[in-house]
Amino acid sequence: LVKTRVVRDPFLRADAGSASVNGFDVAAVEILPDERDQIESRLRRASDEDFRLVITSGGTGLSPRDTTPEATLAVSDRVVPGIAELMRIESLKITPKAALSRAVAGIRKGTLIINLPGSVKGVRECLAAVRPILSHAVDVLKQSSLGCGE
Amino acid sequence: LVKTRVVRDPFLRADAGSASVNGFDVAAVEILPDERDQIESRLRRASDEDFRLVITSGGTGLSPRDTTPEATLAVSDRVVPGIAELMRIESLKITPKAALSRAVAGIRKGTLIINLPGSVKGVRECLAAVRPILSHAVDVLKQSSLGCGE
Amino acid sequence: LVKTRVVRDPFLRADAGSASVNGFDVAAVEILPDERDQIESRLRRASDEDFRLVITSGGTGLSPRDTTPEATLAVSDRVVPGIAELMRIESLKITPKAALSRAVAGIRKGTLIINLPGSVKGVRECLAAVRPILSHAVDVLKQSSLGCGE
Repeated sequence: LVKTRVVRDPFLRADAGSASVNGFDVAAVEILPDERDQIESRLRRASDEDFRLVITSGGTGLSPRDTTPEATLAVSDRVVPGIAELMRIESLKITPKAALSRAVAGIRKGTLIINLPGSVKGVRECLAAVRPILSHAVDVLKQSSLGCGE
Repeated sequence: LVKTRVVRDPFLRADAGSASVNGFDVAAVEILPDERDQIESRLRRASDEDFRLVITSGGTGLSPRDTTPEATLAVSDRVVPGIAELMRIESLKITPKAALSRAVAGIRKGTLIINLPGSVKGVRECLAAVRPILSHAVDVLKQSSLGCGE
Repeated sequence: LVKTRVVRDPFLRADAGSASVNGFDVAAVEILPDERDQIESRLRRASDEDFRLVITSGGTGLSPRDTTPEATLAVSDRVVPGIAELMRIESLKITPKAALSRAVAGIRKGTLIINLPGSVKGVRECLAAVRPILSHAVDVLKQSSLGCGE
């Protein structure tokens, strides 16, 4: 199962008053089946609804049902290879199995999508790795979407 | 020349009783010309024959004849970027020229395909890097192909 | 703005006698707008004119106007993922924001194209990272283009 954690940025105050993560308001935590079509359409909708950050968890392994990276790439306009590399570099310091995470990160319009592994341990390690850059990344995307005059 | 080391897993006992590598039985060691078409068709056939692991050596450099990564990507359903990153991270500790290996790793159905460089030294370094994860990777792919009920 | 630093190799003596970089003669330093089409066509032309090395600076970030990597991939026959990985690995030792550089490196015919970030600091860090491999990379491409008999 793929958990899609859809996150609005602080300036877009989520209605759902769930716990804040890394300074972001979490608008929704949803669980989707391992179906590439459903993952793609949820990612597309999150982007259309102006979510700034979508964090997925799971579906990044080698099993045939693991297609979250393919879904992410399919909906992304541009990829951000360094985010996935950073997560693997940091996780590789803990276990060589981190090499088997096929996680990617991509941008669809103003939305940053980041894949995390499915395990609690993997999520924790990878979130720690990207924490220092998340706010900056989302800020850049937000400024951009304000228009050229900005 | 590209050497394709086609490896069955231990449960599929190779007829050709060649030396075991990392606990795998080596079913075949073949030498192919630097022809992308021939490499692709050999990789496809290995996958159709239920080989679990195919290790190629050579054809990963910058020369126009080096097209093993392109052949591998062309036949792969999904890529495993972390395996190639891990090999380069480890090899970069020895020489910066490791950055010029364009090796990739991919999955075609139940078969894991990993590119290694052509030099004996490069092969040794990269095999050492992936050794800790090979069995786990192949196990995950094998379980998957047993069906959903597994 | 994207600066495209188009570099001929020492054996192709540039007419424009600008400062040498890393042993290469710099044939041209040009500033292009953030327009993917213009970047692509300049890269194509540099390759057609037998430039050995093209170094771009800028347009690698998350802003919608940052499309240098996409332009580079669009004109490249083959990618060299390890060069971009090496630059990020080295820059990550200085700042985690290095993960947000979407830089890529690719080969078009006999031309190696490498993206660098736009900041002076980023350029310096990334050039330092690739300096040890630049000459070797260009040498391999040059030899290749001399023909099969070489």
